[in-house]
Amino acid sequence: MVLAVGAHPDDIELGCGATLALFKKRGHDIHLLVLTKGEASGNPDDREKECLLSAKTIGTENLYFGKMEDTKITDGIEAISQIESYIKKISPDIIFGHSPKDGHQDHRNAAMATLSAARNSKKVLLYESPAALRDFCPQLFVDVTSTFDLKLKALEAFGSQVSKIYFKGNHSVGAHSPAVGSARIPYVSNASEGLARFRGFQAGVELAEGFEVGKFLLEIESK
Amino acid sequence: MVLAVGAHPDDIELGCGATLALFKKRGHDIHLLVLTKGEASGNPDDREKECLLSAKTIGTENLYFGKMEDTKITDGIEAISQIESYIKKISPDIIFGHSPKDGHQDHRNAAMATLSAARNSKKVLLYESPAALRDFCPQLFVDVTSTFDLKLKALEAFGSQVSKIYFKGNHSVGAHSPAVGSARIPYVSNASEGLARFRGFQAGVELAEGFEVGKFLLEIESK
Amino acid sequence: MVLAVGAHPDDIELGCGATLALFKKRGHDIHLLVLTKGEASGNPDDREKECLLSAKTIGTENLYFGKMEDTKITDGIEAISQIESYIKKISPDIIFGHSPKDGHQDHRNAAMATLSAARNSKKVLLYESPAALRDFCPQLFVDVTSTFDLKLKALEAFGSQVSKIYFKGNHSVGAHSPAVGSARIPYVSNASEGLARFRGFQAGVELAEGFEVGKFLLEIESK
Amino acid sequence: MVLAVGAHPDDIELGCGATLALFKKRGHDIHLLVLTKGEASGNPDDREKECLLSAKTIGTENLYFGKMEDTKITDGIEAISQIESYIKKISPDIIFGHSPKDGHQDHRNAAMATLSAARNSKKVLLYESPAALRDFCPQLFVDVTSTFDLKLKALEAFGSQVSKIYFKGNHSVGAHSPAVGSARIPYVSNASEGLARFRGFQAGVELAEGFEVGKFLLEIESK
Amino acid sequence: MVLAVGAHPDDIELGCGATLALFKKRGHDIHLLVLTKGEASGNPDDREKECLLSAKTIGTENLYFGKMEDTKITDGIEAISQIESYIKKISPDIIFGHSPKDGHQDHRNAAMATLSAARNSKKVLLYESPAALRDFCPQLFVDVTSTFDLKLKALEAFGSQVSKIYFKGNHSVGAHSPAVGSARIPYVSNASEGLARFRGFQAGVELAEGFEVGKFLLEIESK
Amino acid sequence: MVLAVGAHPDDIELGCGATLALFKKRGHDIHLLVLTKGEASGNPDDREKECLLSAKTIGTENLYFGKMEDTKITDGIEAISQIESYIKKISPDIIFGHSPKDGHQDHRNAAMATLSAARNSKKVLLYESPAALRDFCPQLFVDVTSTFDLKLKALEAFGSQVSKIYFKGNHSVGAHSPAVGSARIPYVSNASEGLARFRGFQAGVELAEGFEVGKFLLEIESK
Repeated sequence: MVLAVGAHPDDIELGCGATLALFKKRGHDIHLLVLTKGEASGNPDDREKECLLSAKTIGTENLYFGKMEDTKITDGIEAISQIESYIKKISPDIIFGHSPKDGHQDHRNAAMATLSAARNSKKVLLYESPAALRDFCPQLFVDVTSTFDLKLKALEAFGSQVSKIYFKGNHSVGAHSPAVGSARIPYVSNASEGLARFRGFQAGVELAEGFEVGKFLLEIESK
Repeated sequence: MVLAVGAHPDDIELGCGATLALFKKRGHDIHLLVLTKGEASGNPDDREKECLLSAKTIGTENLYFGKMEDTKITDGIEAISQIESYIKKISPDIIFGHSPKDGHQDHRNAAMATLSAARNSKKVLLYESPAALRDFCPQLFVDVTSTFDLKLKALEAFGSQVSKIYFKGNHSVGAHSPAVGSARIPYVSNASEGLARFRGFQAGVELAEGFEVGKFLLEIESK
Repeated sequence: MVLAVGAHPDDIELGCGATLALFKKRGHDIHLLVLTKGEASGNPDDREKECLLSAKTIGTENLYFGKMEDTKITDGIEAISQIESYIKKISPDIIFGHSPKDGHQDHRNAAMATLSAARNSKKVLLYESPAALRDFCPQLFVDVTSTFDLKLKALEAFGSQVSKIYFKGNHSVGAHSPAVGSARIPYVSNASEGLARFRGFQAGVELAEGFEVGKFLLEIESK
Repeated sequence: MVLAVGAHPDDIELGCGATLALFKKRGHDIHLLVLTKGEASGNPDDREKECLLSAKTIGTENLYFGKMEDTKITDGIEAISQIESYIKKISPDIIFGHSPKDGHQDHRNAAMATLSAARNSKKVLLYESPAALRDFCPQLFVDVTSTFDLKLKALEAFGSQVSKIYFKGNHSVGAHSPAVGSARIPYVSNASEGLARFRGFQAGVELAEGFEVGKFLLEIESK
Repeated sequence: MVLAVGAHPDDIELGCGATLALFKKRGHDIHLLVLTKGEASGNPDDREKECLLSAKTIGTENLYFGKMEDTKITDGIEAISQIESYIKKISPDIIFGHSPKDGHQDHRNAAMATLSAARNSKKVLLYESPAALRDFCPQLFVDVTSTFDLKLKALEAFGSQVSKIYFKGNHSVGAHSPAVGSARIPYVSNASEGLARFRGFQAGVELAEGFEVGKFLLEIESK
Repeated sequence: MVLAVGAHPDDIELGCGATLALFKKRGHDIHLLVLTKGEASGNPDDREKECLLSAKTIGTENLYFGKMEDTKITDGIEAISQIESYIKKISPDIIFGHSPKDGHQDHRNAAMATLSAARNSKKVLLYESPAALRDFCPQLFVDVTSTFDLKLKALEAFGSQVSKIYFKGNHSVGAHSPAVGSARIPYVSNASEGLARFRGFQAGVELAEGFEVGKFLLEIESK
């Protein structure tokens, strides 16, 4: 049972979409808790629909929305108790959340609230958003070579956010043909893919997502 | 397949002895590489024997000694290539080594050499020695409640080191009866046990060993 | 004159109770400022009574409550000015407060507010709460071997909090007889004691409390 | 006048090759000091030739070799004084060197030696090698969109190092067609390019190299 | 085009007044955005007048006030959008703001808000306020030997703040004649000057202001 | 009993000369261990004489020289055992040493060796040399207003080092009359004084020396 917590629609997918898709592929249930509907950057109904479409692409319909206000998430008891209630309900084996090392105030506060809410959980991993500060320092990696396509496809769902730099990437669309992409996803960020390659290099695999370790209680399997 | 690397006899046991015992208990092969014979603090032959006795207690006879000189381990090519040769031979799934955040020069250098030698390995965890600096910051924990007794028993083997503070602990022997110990191990450090309790508290279990994450490529098991 | 500031009843005792008891024992006046009545985890009147009982155990009746709301302490001017008013009234030689490296939002904010309020004070030490983050890094220690019993006894006062993990510790009550404890305090945390042993080991004494140094103006006594 | 210092042939190109090419393009003289001939990973004569070919590609023949031994560079007076002598000779306006946050002992030591030798220089920037530790944290960026091709071409010169992971990249050659590359450079690392895209994203440009700031005395130009 | 953002009147001058004066001297336009009128430490009308006088001394009348409340600046959307609107209007080439490593809550929050608002800017430098935490770590310096007098003169404008320690400095007025000052500015801080000398020493010049680098996209001028 | 350890003649005085003078003034014995004779920057006999003259100015003749080679101090067993032998002989209550956050390789290594040698000591404070890295972060301060003159006078003894930047300071001699100095010490660094003012400001006194805390076991005096 996997729970991922994000501040806005698309944060989870950008941070750990390929990892979640891999969990799904391996038979795990995944649950997504999005603290706001992202109403500061678009129509909340549209964003909710996009988010559900994206969730389905990754492989789940377990999508929940918190009741925080976009741009005004705090690290206080409101956010904490909302997250706690989902942890209680879902009993996740592993929780994914924002890293506090992030330039967006909602992300930082969501990170702190997630860490507080998950204080008794066994595994908490913190993902790298496009707004992550440059001292984000991943120690744990997941090889997402087999599911990175799904991440890109999931990101396609967020049509309303296309103008954002992490979607159009850091080049004029089409200037370079994306290495992984296809005609189907012309606007997908080459920043996301660049990062996946670089984290992959650090991990010794082709494409990876990197995580800071909030807490990780390692279980030792019998052999 | 597990490989643990330490600077001197007793470093591995103090840092991750209970974790290794748990790996053994779960059916994994464990290998110990000790870079020196600890000749600066005792007769090297005696220390070698003690070390083998300790290894057996943990559950292995796969004990190897490097050819470094006690107190003079460097982080250079000599140490690196010795460690590399064992990595090549053993192909460990996981490697345990010193943390660079350590007050002992041999530990620091062994840590850097281990990290260099293991640069292409998938999982490298850094253990907490009694000389660890106070900014050692564990992110990953192993619940060693079921094997902590074996760690203490293994430490008993190091009779020649009894006068060291981390063996006699931070109190006069016998002043307080150790919580876990017994008549059998009157001199075992209550510092080790105190640390295991504290790390256990942080991990949400009774007794734990804590590790910094050098690198951890998380595999996602099929369910 | 000593002032300790905590977010909730029991924070001060858990963080620096034995150190305060030692100050008292050596003839210093100690004052406790608790910013909230901890109403989120129990009846505030009960918690106030427990807190006073605990304070008396440590050796003082100088117990004050701030007017902050439990779970909603901020690092802003309200908290700062409440703390400032007590600093003005008491003129403490040394101030103890939370560390900002803490997983609880109230603790973090109390820490920042205390540091702001104490900006002109000569000595500010930051204590280690059970929720301290793992990068809490103590540099200054107090040997509390002679008063640790009083700390445990003071913690007994907080009967309403018994179910919290840092009270019952990280094992079933009674599974191990605590090394320091007695029949009188069966439920006291072995985590607190484990930490005190470990910090004691780092400090070279039997049992210690560790502190981060906010500021310390060292006076050099005439000899 | 620009001076770049590297431990081995190819370090400078991997770390700041595109930035140097840009300096050249803008009319600055560039000088390369390579502390060893990289004899531990190939024939030193071959590596010297490759290095000169690479330097020419970037746009300079000012290539110097230090007299350090591969794998045995220290941070001591030998390395420092060799670097100092070139600083004295060249009087560079800006110096590029390794970062101390690097997993390779030669890189770490070269970094410290460069920082010591350059202690009176006005601008020292530390580049990101493929072995950089994950806490490398760039603050300063150079937009290398216009010269990244030259970097890749320069890297082609190092034919003897093709088997190294940062050359072949983290995928089987040809599995994905590189975004920037061409038939001409089939083996060039897609890790380098992934990193350049990601750093570019952080800098707000297409492709960037990122640097830690050793020291930077900002001159304010008249307008 | 230069934009400096500060929490209160006098923050900008204390942090980067001499650098701004140098920009002006070299022909650049400078703009000052002060988020509050500092009403918690004086009459806001008086403080506004002082601030304008100070701005003129540095060489600009482009002084704007935000609509935040003194002591209650947040890092949220209100502060961010106020700063964004000025960035949009002014299109600065370089932005100066507070560092998050600051003991004053308004400064910390202003810093985070400035970094968020400036996320797409090319150059963001963070200045050192008198309340900066001791882990403030400047990497970039400006030689302000030629304009430090102007900084001191600008600080003279803040007559209402004379009682603050960073104005009267850390000694009784007149106990030592300030090295740089004159009869004209008897009360100006010798702390500011001490810091300028020390940062100057680190930078290799006589007097300097030091900055942490938020982001710096280095342009390479043609030669 | 106070022991200060430095790498070269003048390091101790620059780092903690005024603090040592204050200890002496308050009746404490002070001992100076200088690991090398500084033969890389002058005639060792001359430097030894200067060092003794300086020691006398501070108030002691207890000056010892280690047997390390200038520019080649290591952090290994040779340096450690030399320092240990003096700790054994002198039994200092407090030890002053270099900080590892220093740009000079001898200083870094001396720091690590001092920390290792002093691992069982109760108080170890790390001083700020002119070569300290910019992330040196003092937490503990000593008010040296009353003895700073002695520090400057002691530094006068090092006539052979006058050309070094930290002696002549960061301005042409005489350009500004030093605030504290006099005709007697025209060449004394205004950097040292600038730093003392700045650290004094941070400590809330006129002139201070700042220290990182290696370890500090706080004793609580009876009142």
